[in-house]
Amino acid sequence: MSDSTRETSTELFATVKYDDKGLVPCVVQDYKDGTVLMVAYMNEQSLKRTLETQQAVFWSRSRQAYWIKGESSGNIQKLKELRIDCDGDCLVAKVEQIGDAACHTGQRSCFYRITDAKGKLEMTSKPLFDPKKVYGK
Amino acid sequence: MSDSTRETSTELFATVKYDDKGLVPCVVQDYKDGTVLMVAYMNEQSLKRTLETQQAVFWSRSRQAYWIKGESSGNIQKLKELRIDCDGDCLVAKVEQIGDAACHTGQRSCFYRITDAKGKLEMTSKPLFDPKKVYGK
Repeated sequence: MSDSTRETSTELFATVKYDDKGLVPCVVQDYKDGTVLMVAYMNEQSLKRTLETQQAVFWSRSRQAYWIKGESSGNIQKLKELRIDCDGDCLVAKVEQIGDAACHTGQRSCFYRITDAKGKLEMTSKPLFDPKKVYGK
Repeated sequence: MSDSTRETSTELFATVKYDDKGLVPCVVQDYKDGTVLMVAYMNEQSLKRTLETQQAVFWSRSRQAYWIKGESSGNIQKLKELRIDCDGDCLVAKVEQIGDAACHTGQRSCFYRITDAKGKLEMTSKPLFDPKKVYGK
């Protein structure tokens, strides 16, 4: 492997550029069929925990707390691959989604609504589980 | 189609939640094989222009200007599908990438670097074009 294709082991953390809130967006993609399941945010510590545990750990902007994806529902995301973009301000995680559904609504993907050219939305799938049963009231 | 699967035509623009800079991230995915090509940002006007022209139009945060993707390189992105997530703060655009490469480095995808569990980065692909020839010096 040439020097140009291998960088140092500290490179990821030297390369990530966090926004003014210390966060970087992470696109979560099903490792088998490439479906974009969700987009969530990581800070440096959640990125480290994701790598260490090989399981998706985000920073919840609404709760202002670490968010081990699937901690409540059991629908964890096992890390298969983690990529960083050209300018270091976005990540893509390819994961194995346990329980098939990534969205808190019970949908497989958070992106279950499609728009037409005029902005009319349509649901493209049905929930795989009932959120009330999984998360309680 | 039932009421629950069809929403009104103003729904997209009523549903999008912009951040404190008036922007929403948009994951751009190859419509054929699902590769995540890039992530860029849209404001309301660039979102409207994307729908009207059926071609990706972003807001460049670095240049603070509208950014018709591919305007310089010719590598435009034809819109095939646009989705919005459960809480309205992220978009996924499936596109036909003209010229195959989406990244300004000449790579097909901006996410050409993969990390191992220790944060060591590795290039996973080679550029499809020479940026100097496409963009000049």
